[in-house]
Amino acid sequence: MENKDLTYAVIGTGALGGYYGGKLAYGGRRVCFQIRTGFEEVKKQGIIINSCDGDFTLPDAEIYNETSGMPKADVVLVCLKTTANYLLPEMLKPILKEETLVILVQNGLLFEEELSESLPGQAIAGASAFICSFKVAPGHISHRDFGHISFALLKKSEAACELLEKVKDDFIACGVEASVEADLPTLRWRKLVWNIPYNGMTVVMDTSTDKLMQNSESRKLIKDLMLETQQGALSCGVTIESDFIEKMLTYTDSMIPYAPSMKLDYDAKRPMEIKGIYSNPLKAALKFGVDLKKIRMLEQQLYFKQSEYLK
Amino acid sequence: MENKDLTYAVIGTGALGGYYGGKLAYGGRRVCFQIRTGFEEVKKQGIIINSCDGDFTLPDAEIYNETSGMPKADVVLVCLKTTANYLLPEMLKPILKEETLVILVQNGLLFEEELSESLPGQAIAGASAFICSFKVAPGHISHRDFGHISFALLKKSEAACELLEKVKDDFIACGVEASVEADLPTLRWRKLVWNIPYNGMTVVMDTSTDKLMQNSESRKLIKDLMLETQQGALSCGVTIESDFIEKMLTYTDSMIPYAPSMKLDYDAKRPMEIKGIYSNPLKAALKFGVDLKKIRMLEQQLYFKQSEYLK
Repeated sequence: MENKDLTYAVIGTGALGGYYGGKLAYGGRRVCFQIRTGFEEVKKQGIIINSCDGDFTLPDAEIYNETSGMPKADVVLVCLKTTANYLLPEMLKPILKEETLVILVQNGLLFEEELSESLPGQAIAGASAFICSFKVAPGHISHRDFGHISFALLKKSEAACELLEKVKDDFIACGVEASVEADLPTLRWRKLVWNIPYNGMTVVMDTSTDKLMQNSESRKLIKDLMLETQQGALSCGVTIESDFIEKMLTYTDSMIPYAPSMKLDYDAKRPMEIKGIYSNPLKAALKFGVDLKKIRMLEQQLYFKQSEYLK
Repeated sequence: MENKDLTYAVIGTGALGGYYGGKLAYGGRRVCFQIRTGFEEVKKQGIIINSCDGDFTLPDAEIYNETSGMPKADVVLVCLKTTANYLLPEMLKPILKEETLVILVQNGLLFEEELSESLPGQAIAGASAFICSFKVAPGHISHRDFGHISFALLKKSEAACELLEKVKDDFIACGVEASVEADLPTLRWRKLVWNIPYNGMTVVMDTSTDKLMQNSESRKLIKDLMLETQQGALSCGVTIESDFIEKMLTYTDSMIPYAPSMKLDYDAKRPMEIKGIYSNPLKAALKFGVDLKKIRMLEQQLYFKQSEYLK
């Protein structure tokens, strides 16, 4: 397989799928993009990337409305919001080969495990993207800052490890910083240290990250939530150093005022990714008898907030 | 003393002071009302009470702008918002005799103890009002429902007990249901079982009590907060039966959609009574090593919300 070029499928051509898929395609890899909203328009215009590293367009990108017409892929990058994950088993079927690697470029815990129940034996990985990008319009992505992506396998096999290394090399060759990590739960919990406090708190307090950091009480609460996340991680066997928490706080201090993706979803009255960022981590910790009280309270408040616009 | 009529002073002639002081005055007791906002107007027009039990007016009510011109009182009913309690020691001085009983008709924990530090040796009681009333305009109160008031002494002495009984008898004689309770912490913590969840949650979620009860997640959180309050009470030696919690939930279900006083303060951008309802109970429980995590989180969120309009 090493000498064969990989065929990529991108499911969900938004802020993440558009950017990463776009970089791979621009770098010469074969990428088939699935896009639902605005399909006709994007099919006509192609994909447009405004990037802090240089703009580019893909006028002849391979665009599909549904997976049913797509060629089978060696690697699938799932870049949907996790609120649509219930659709995945059906959507993936037409493009999977026995050896296809499915990578969930998503936020939140346990989705790889859940998908694996529907696709037993399939190679599955998770990816965590450290990036500021957003969708300007269908097929039109603005990439503002960062871009690093980390991968980790749900279950290691020789073939899957080899394939994931090749994916990482493709990303790097196409100008994206990428790495393969040893442990998927570690990858997921480390991202949660930031996502759990800031996503929920910007929604519930209806504010931005900088304001939360400036008030001493909310800043303390942000740190409390990080410490509970650390505790939750530990209950699942993942050690997060206290240094890392301090780093996340300092890093957020240095950020420009920022609305996390959950705040954007909330403002647009879209479903929020409460399950992956809150309910699943709570479930994972509770399995080991650990009750994360403040995270649970934030989850309860988020479900209330969501119920106000989503019936 | 038994045969002498008591002179009452009401500090803060709002929803509570106007109603209870008004009932006493209408019933023939001597009541001196202190009022700041709208003093000139109320001095002219008198006090107007619209009550579900029958309207009445007090055209000749004794109205004062400041305590300095008031006669010394046998009983002081402090009906200020607790956010103004830092003013109390100075305000009370001109109207106190050695044997004057000061009754805090307020919400929240530890204010009697705090006042006692400024007024050592003074007889002090707390009162908990179970009433729906609000200020329509200065000196104009609307009483919608209920009205029961419970008293309890901070420290018992024969004289203070006798005086408080007389106060209770005066309230009853003037048409207000009243009782004397044996234990002040019990009186305060029982009120907190309702105040802690609903005051803070209606502010933070920007909603009303009925909406919080209709959503299963926020309803669960309301109950969690009640259970933490029960735990906090227990740490201070106060037992609250689980029946009482169920009763509070059922009672709130049966209420018309309601904005607690903290929500009204928040909407009007006034200081909120966070200290008495949250910080002091947290402090009291922490003294016995009990960390009430969800109540602490609600306190942190409330301080953040308040910082957005109060600099």
